[in-house]
Amino acid sequence: MDTTPVYLDCDTGIDDALALAYLLASPRAELLGVGTVSGNSDAAQCARNTLDLLALAGRSDIPVAIGNHDFQAAPYGGGSPHVHGDNGMGGVRLPRSPREPEAETAAEMLIRLAHEQRGKLHVIAVAPLTNLAEALRREPRLPELVAHVTIMGGAALAPGNITAAAEANIFHDPEAAAEVLAAPWPVTLVPLDVTMAEVMEEDRRRRLADSGRPVPEALGRMLEHYFEFYREIFGRPCSAMHDPLAAAIAIGDVAVTDAPSVRVAVETGNGPARGATVCDLRGRYRGNGDQSGAHCRVVLEAEAGFPDFLVESLMRAF
Amino acid sequence: MDTTPVYLDCDTGIDDALALAYLLASPRAELLGVGTVSGNSDAAQCARNTLDLLALAGRSDIPVAIGNHDFQAAPYGGGSPHVHGDNGMGGVRLPRSPREPEAETAAEMLIRLAHEQRGKLHVIAVAPLTNLAEALRREPRLPELVAHVTIMGGAALAPGNITAAAEANIFHDPEAAAEVLAAPWPVTLVPLDVTMAEVMEEDRRRRLADSGRPVPEALGRMLEHYFEFYREIFGRPCSAMHDPLAAAIAIGDVAVTDAPSVRVAVETGNGPARGATVCDLRGRYRGNGDQSGAHCRVVLEAEAGFPDFLVESLMRAF
Repeated sequence: MDTTPVYLDCDTGIDDALALAYLLASPRAELLGVGTVSGNSDAAQCARNTLDLLALAGRSDIPVAIGNHDFQAAPYGGGSPHVHGDNGMGGVRLPRSPREPEAETAAEMLIRLAHEQRGKLHVIAVAPLTNLAEALRREPRLPELVAHVTIMGGAALAPGNITAAAEANIFHDPEAAAEVLAAPWPVTLVPLDVTMAEVMEEDRRRRLADSGRPVPEALGRMLEHYFEFYREIFGRPCSAMHDPLAAAIAIGDVAVTDAPSVRVAVETGNGPARGATVCDLRGRYRGNGDQSGAHCRVVLEAEAGFPDFLVESLMRAF
Repeated sequence: MDTTPVYLDCDTGIDDALALAYLLASPRAELLGVGTVSGNSDAAQCARNTLDLLALAGRSDIPVAIGNHDFQAAPYGGGSPHVHGDNGMGGVRLPRSPREPEAETAAEMLIRLAHEQRGKLHVIAVAPLTNLAEALRREPRLPELVAHVTIMGGAALAPGNITAAAEANIFHDPEAAAEVLAAPWPVTLVPLDVTMAEVMEEDRRRRLADSGRPVPEALGRMLEHYFEFYREIFGRPCSAMHDPLAAAIAIGDVAVTDAPSVRVAVETGNGPARGATVCDLRGRYRGNGDQSGAHCRVVLEAEAGFPDFLVESLMRAF
């Protein structure tokens, strides 16, 4: 079983924190660097959150780079404090890591790692795709240099979340998402269709929060805030595991059971479908989802049981 | 059991012909008038097809009005001869009815019937919504005068057909669809989610074609062309029953089993989601689909067995 070299692009964020900890915990992943972008919180705050969580996990060796503060067509709008708390971590204050972000930007880090790991780097993006689009513009050969891109984002046949048509990561920067999904690299899109299908329940959250161990305890406390937001959606305290599920699919811990390769376009107009990921799933009517020449695999179904596996992984590693 | 007074707006069209014959066959419907619009074929040809089928069915008493030839934002583009044949009827030539279309337009007919049937008229629209939008502009009180509008169109959680995002009726005139769905009348939207869920099979088509009776035989012959188109989609000769299913839901012959009332917007931009019906189904994540104040019921599931019921209805009536 190979270890996958990973660049993580995130907007930490509670579920980003889970994805980060999960990647640290998994023997299948070797996290080489983390870039941040505005989304759940602003890019600089997300980098601080990432550095502090890495320090708590004893992994201050992993470099963190601040990426874009603003989106392509709009300035950063203040994030989602009602979902992720005023600091992006559900209000949980971690000990401040003495380490600072790198001098390079997130796009520069991604390009550097792609060259260093030529053909082997897996990009996991669980945030607006602003940094990835910028890296593509700065290094047009990036698609040849990267092994695979896994994106948590979009809604294929499921409703959106931030609007009726759009998922938040894509909606924040549809222009960037359009560029990233048009680039000729192999992409796995992990949309709401699958990330909303299975949730973490309160007893599992408690297991983390009451563990008496710094990393799981911090995550469990952050999740309390996240669970309150999701109470409105699911009718009970629990939460979707958007970002860690994308990470788990990327490194092969969770198998996909329905994931056709189809053309995906992003709506960038200003109408009601702005930010929609238009996945050409018309082939499903004939029971044949794949389109020849398509390079984006859209995950519509994945094996069950990930929330428990995630908790188990975190409890064993930390 | 009440009989529903119906105005049918159509672009006859093979499945429009089935819807028309079905409404004539059903004791639940009283068809007061038919307006045509360009779509499957041009508006004048659709009126001719309608008149000829009505004559074949011995119902030349039902008036037919020609509606809009062009769409709001684009001229009529030549229809779908690969789906509906060069004449909209799968190439089947019916005896020409001596009757001609009315002097009034389809929009004028709809407004007239709405006034005559004040509060009782059911509008069944199985075509681009150009005529309905024009009627709304000509008679702003139309929403108060009409009892209900049932529309075959759109795709809620299902893929589109004419594009990845859009269903053909809505895609042909998204601007009209946006006006019609925004108007304050009760609407039932019958999208691809349900019209693609159940098909008519070849043995049923043969039953019509081999019946030796003029109306079922003509419909069965038309369907041969339609089945050939659908062979590419479903992998065998068969076909979706878009328009007759909408008619059956409108008059209460087919019960809906999942049909939340939600806000529906139509994407009118020129991006990849043009013509998408953005249904706000985010409530489904909490198992509660209805939105307060919404006046559009989106049919996601209906009781099974309609194709057989349709054939049975036609065989008994004609």
